[in-house]
Amino acid sequence: MALIVHKYGGTSMGSPERIRNVAARVAKWHKAGHQMVVVPSAMAGETNRLIALAKEIDADPDSRELDMIAATGEQVSVGLLAMALKNCGVPAVSYAGWQVPVRTDNAFGKARIMSIEAGRVLDDLAAGRVVIITGFQGIDPGGNVTTLGRGGSDTSAVAVAAALQADECLIFTDVDGVYTTDPRIVPEARRMKKITFEEMLEMASLGSKVLQIRSVEFAGKYKVKTRVLSSLTPPDIDLAQEAVSGTLITFEEDETMEKAVISGIAFNRDEAKITVMRVPDRPGIAYLILGSIAEANIDVDMIIQNQSVDGLTDFSFTVHRNEYQKALAVLEAKVRDQVGGGDIVGDTKICKISAVGIGMRSHVGIASLMFRTLADEGINIQMISTSEIKISVVIEDKYMELAVRALHKGFGLEQQPGHVNDGEAV
Amino acid sequence: MALIVHKYGGTSMGSPERIRNVAARVAKWHKAGHQMVVVPSAMAGETNRLIALAKEIDADPDSRELDMIAATGEQVSVGLLAMALKNCGVPAVSYAGWQVPVRTDNAFGKARIMSIEAGRVLDDLAAGRVVIITGFQGIDPGGNVTTLGRGGSDTSAVAVAAALQADECLIFTDVDGVYTTDPRIVPEARRMKKITFEEMLEMASLGSKVLQIRSVEFAGKYKVKTRVLSSLTPPDIDLAQEAVSGTLITFEEDETMEKAVISGIAFNRDEAKITVMRVPDRPGIAYLILGSIAEANIDVDMIIQNQSVDGLTDFSFTVHRNEYQKALAVLEAKVRDQVGGGDIVGDTKICKISAVGIGMRSHVGIASLMFRTLADEGINIQMISTSEIKISVVIEDKYMELAVRALHKGFGLEQQPGHVNDGEAV
Repeated sequence: MALIVHKYGGTSMGSPERIRNVAARVAKWHKAGHQMVVVPSAMAGETNRLIALAKEIDADPDSRELDMIAATGEQVSVGLLAMALKNCGVPAVSYAGWQVPVRTDNAFGKARIMSIEAGRVLDDLAAGRVVIITGFQGIDPGGNVTTLGRGGSDTSAVAVAAALQADECLIFTDVDGVYTTDPRIVPEARRMKKITFEEMLEMASLGSKVLQIRSVEFAGKYKVKTRVLSSLTPPDIDLAQEAVSGTLITFEEDETMEKAVISGIAFNRDEAKITVMRVPDRPGIAYLILGSIAEANIDVDMIIQNQSVDGLTDFSFTVHRNEYQKALAVLEAKVRDQVGGGDIVGDTKICKISAVGIGMRSHVGIASLMFRTLADEGINIQMISTSEIKISVVIEDKYMELAVRALHKGFGLEQQPGHVNDGEAV
Repeated sequence: MALIVHKYGGTSMGSPERIRNVAARVAKWHKAGHQMVVVPSAMAGETNRLIALAKEIDADPDSRELDMIAATGEQVSVGLLAMALKNCGVPAVSYAGWQVPVRTDNAFGKARIMSIEAGRVLDDLAAGRVVIITGFQGIDPGGNVTTLGRGGSDTSAVAVAAALQADECLIFTDVDGVYTTDPRIVPEARRMKKITFEEMLEMASLGSKVLQIRSVEFAGKYKVKTRVLSSLTPPDIDLAQEAVSGTLITFEEDETMEKAVISGIAFNRDEAKITVMRVPDRPGIAYLILGSIAEANIDVDMIIQNQSVDGLTDFSFTVHRNEYQKALAVLEAKVRDQVGGGDIVGDTKICKISAVGIGMRSHVGIASLMFRTLADEGINIQMISTSEIKISVVIEDKYMELAVRALHKGFGLEQQPGHVNDGEAV
């Protein structure tokens, strides 16, 4: 008897048949006595259809109006799912974000949730109803419809779970959990039964598509017990078995986890590298370069500046590939003359590979094992950056799969934690 | 410099190209200095698509959830139109029904507008923005999304015009006004420049598809100057010319109108006739029969009970053809035994033809001209009912076109008012 939030993605909601399956799964949990809240995405393809329609009107559509349009996809989903549940004999009610309300700021297209009012939903739950709430959207202080951006339904689900103080938030998706790396690249990749919040945050930020990063941040901030699990199992699978499947994001490191030095290998082929060559090594240069990029609303990931030689240094950073041309143009227009540097060069044929693990904090030698493993494969490292629980390298993108496989094996990830390679470098 | 409401139907909003045309037309009015409010329908086919999707989940979908889904079609429309206007350089903002708010009762699928708050919209208009409001929908006292039923956007537009005390409400549609009868049946049918509210109400209730009847009721109740005109003219057509085109619904009978005895011939092929034969002619019988029909939520149009013979009479009424089987079943189950009547017989192969005209009030002989005209064509009349400004007859449906043509000619409707046939019967 718990309060449980389920989240279902667009693929799970992709057809009337699949929506009936979602309803059957939710009904099973409801009949077991749980109070159920469900946050579904729009039907697969629907958000893209709506955005394409908007772009036929205006290639650069007004962001308020785009949110008005894009939010309808989820509104259809919640209505259909409520119908399907009632059709199974389960009382259900659907709400759009503004009806709960889910309050956000007014950053259309990438709004952030500020608060969620729980009263109405709790009343419904107390009355035995399943409550279905649109993902991806909310209402701003001016009463306008907002959306949270791509993947925002994960964040909606976790935020709803936090607001309702739910016992657990189950993210149903088309993979059965979080893996040590992408199984399409490394067949030996292993599903983790648990992952710490910090590791999940790095995995998400490093390109693992399993969870939207803001949902992980929310889970961390409000300590929402969140589980990633498969929506592809039959809906009538045993509930006790389903409840412990997938990967649980935890907030305590338990004994088992300590033994795994590296939990997973993440990778990202969406970035491009830009270097401003031979800039004077004096205060304000980093701000001058990155300030202009930030003003143009371009997100920067890695930033590298090395020791200067003869008062000159090379300043490098990575941006999303989609913003590469825009970033170059900004630098040419606003930065080159002021910085007085040399050439501005860039490269889109890169990828970033990261080793992530909370155990890294208490071990030396992870970096050297990583670099040696790549060197053994003849792979040159172009950039390096580190954090407390991850090491990321940029390499030529044609080596991506090779590097991921070598590192997965090098760190012994195909084995269960506790049997990790305790060789010299660890 | 006036406050004008435009309404555009689904066909006018049917594609990005057509939405751009709507925007161009609205922009023309806005640039001429008018304060503009626009109420568009969903894109053609969209409401049907959404309802079909719902019916794939549940053949008899929950009405609250169906409204939640169906309302999204208009939300997409208003967003797209706002974008298209901004794209023409016209400031615009879109609102869903709940944002205005348009308050309705909670009769899902056929909600009635109770009030519309004008404040937010008037502020936008004062700031020079075009305001685009979803047709067809509102919000009930419980905060649920409601829809007004098919054709509800006409009603939304007139209600918005009433709430804003607009100078005129222009209903743009795919016909260029209200005709003396359907021009597809009678090529000589003539567009009326004006029609009284009472006549328009009868024409709408009798099957003319030009305006939803509730919108006419609203126009009458709040004295909204309403004009039906073509959306098929080029959007850049001269505004002064456009402003006097189509058919104006008026609230005063002017001299010209007095001269037309009959304004139009309406017809309706959507009804079916049911007769309970030989029922006892005693108090309570009509209630017993129609009460059971009303309880089953079946609308009844004509009701006829004739003089009894030997204490027995035949009781007839018409219902929508879609509800014919249901009505028969109700009578068989609940009425037959209690009434103690004879056979219950029905006929779906009927149509209703009506002559409508405010001038009828001051003329005798309209009925006899109507009956003689039909008799001359060898058409048998099955039922007759009259009101102050219309006479309706039920005939076999295969004679519908013949009857409409004969009556249109018989009443001289192909001629301009003032040149009406002043023959013996008028």
